[in-house]
Amino acid sequence: MNARILSGKDIAESIKSEVAADIARLKTEYGFAPCLAVVRVGDDPASAVYVGNKVRTSEEIGLVSEHHHLPENVSRAELVGLVRSLNWREEVDGILVQLPLPDQINEREIIEMIDPDKDVDGFHPVNVGRLSQGEKSLVPCTPAGVIEILKRSEIEIGGKNAVIVGRSNIVGKPMAMLLLQENATVTICHSRTRDLPEMTRRADILVAAIGRPGFIRGEHIGEGATVIDVGINNVSDVDLARDLFGDDEIEKRLAAIEKRGFTLVGDVNPREAKEKAGNFTPVPGGVGLLTVAMLMKNTVEAAKTRRGVE
Amino acid sequence: MNARILSGKDIAESIKSEVAADIARLKTEYGFAPCLAVVRVGDDPASAVYVGNKVRTSEEIGLVSEHHHLPENVSRAELVGLVRSLNWREEVDGILVQLPLPDQINEREIIEMIDPDKDVDGFHPVNVGRLSQGEKSLVPCTPAGVIEILKRSEIEIGGKNAVIVGRSNIVGKPMAMLLLQENATVTICHSRTRDLPEMTRRADILVAAIGRPGFIRGEHIGEGATVIDVGINNVSDVDLARDLFGDDEIEKRLAAIEKRGFTLVGDVNPREAKEKAGNFTPVPGGVGLLTVAMLMKNTVEAAKTRRGVE
Repeated sequence: MNARILSGKDIAESIKSEVAADIARLKTEYGFAPCLAVVRVGDDPASAVYVGNKVRTSEEIGLVSEHHHLPENVSRAELVGLVRSLNWREEVDGILVQLPLPDQINEREIIEMIDPDKDVDGFHPVNVGRLSQGEKSLVPCTPAGVIEILKRSEIEIGGKNAVIVGRSNIVGKPMAMLLLQENATVTICHSRTRDLPEMTRRADILVAAIGRPGFIRGEHIGEGATVIDVGINNVSDVDLARDLFGDDEIEKRLAAIEKRGFTLVGDVNPREAKEKAGNFTPVPGGVGLLTVAMLMKNTVEAAKTRRGVE
Repeated sequence: MNARILSGKDIAESIKSEVAADIARLKTEYGFAPCLAVVRVGDDPASAVYVGNKVRTSEEIGLVSEHHHLPENVSRAELVGLVRSLNWREEVDGILVQLPLPDQINEREIIEMIDPDKDVDGFHPVNVGRLSQGEKSLVPCTPAGVIEILKRSEIEIGGKNAVIVGRSNIVGKPMAMLLLQENATVTICHSRTRDLPEMTRRADILVAAIGRPGFIRGEHIGEGATVIDVGINNVSDVDLARDLFGDDEIEKRLAAIEKRGFTLVGDVNPREAKEKAGNFTPVPGGVGLLTVAMLMKNTVEAAKTRRGVE
């Protein structure tokens, strides 16, 4: 078997154009563009890259965006004051506080302080609860992106066995709720699962979100399954790279390690997945690209709901 | 195999005595008893029985209880006014609005209006979200009771395969989150699940919460599994009763149908479960008895958290 590669690029581009068209329409019909406020604290380089992507994409598609950058040693009071003012300001539709936050800040307090109607990351317990209860809510971007990939690739979900490896609040658990809403039979596996390969081999749809490079191997994958790789790991070990990539890709990967010191690898062994799976999302170029697109979509949804327009 | 019967009665009594002792201690140490306000609307006979049980048990164990009974044709404004006043009143620790509510009332609006810190049913999205995120929350009483039965019967959960049949907001979904927190590998099945018997036979712990009398049969149960029957159905059909109950029980059941017009039956065929399962909760006398006990426990938990005492 040679898996069909589900490229996130085309799907992310489609979603972004749809959202851009919707924003243009809102401007014409109602005279406003939705506004996303992004808050970044400190100088974590990964956070800087993520926030940069979010702000740049906002601008590309016509969202108004604000970038608030606070110093690493910001006080709780200052950050709380900023979040409160963003909650109050009528023209702000979406608030995203980039995680992780420095140690002096209680992340949960900040997440629970964001107005749930502006919580475009979908991390506020009110949104998590509404998602679980099947009510309208703002849905975490990465699992929402996985659903878009499945639907737009015409992969049936209803009645299928979906197995999720990983039970994080950001991916695993909301992913389970979304797949359940789409009428999949859903199994959540994790580090305490006995005989993981036996559980995952039964999956029609296998979602890997554990944060361990290449952990899901051929033995975990049922013949012809759809394998969604949510992991994004930096690999600098040349031997590991040789184990993960086939002849078609290894030279490029080794060159990346040589040049940048690492190459991006998912939670699935791509060489073995390509042999066993029916469909497979690559890393990079798969689920990751959807996350920012879904953030844009969430911001427009939040704006419509808050402002009572369609 | 002849299943061990997990009686809910002894476990419910243990929990109630523990809660009663805790209330007595709170009175001595802090000078207050927690207060539960129960709101009932209209004259649904089942609701009257449930609310009666809750108020009576509150009094037995030393809780202060209030019973607010509103007429079937109550206006939204009146019910909203009552819930608001219960939210405001400092001495009220728990608020329970008995469902279902009449058609003129939007149930969800009322549930979301209850102060999450007083939401002893655990139905407010903030509590649902916190449960999902592994944060401290008020947990729905029936699934919380199932965990108590498992733990107090010394049935291991961590690393076991738990399969839940049914995906309701009141049982199936919170049950999944609780079993996941206890490190089970969790599968949620429902009406769209393909080959249900094959899925459920793999369960070490099988929870049935679908609302169909005797639906789970021998073919669904793995040899030696723990079967938790959450269903409570009225059966008046004599032939169905004969199919469900063995010689040890059928006479009593037929007498109940004769006398009251029905007998209480779970979602599991008890005759076949007793043959295949290792452990089995009966109906009546199983999970149902835990629900009120856990409501009492939740009220005391809410009181401690709100009042900042241990």
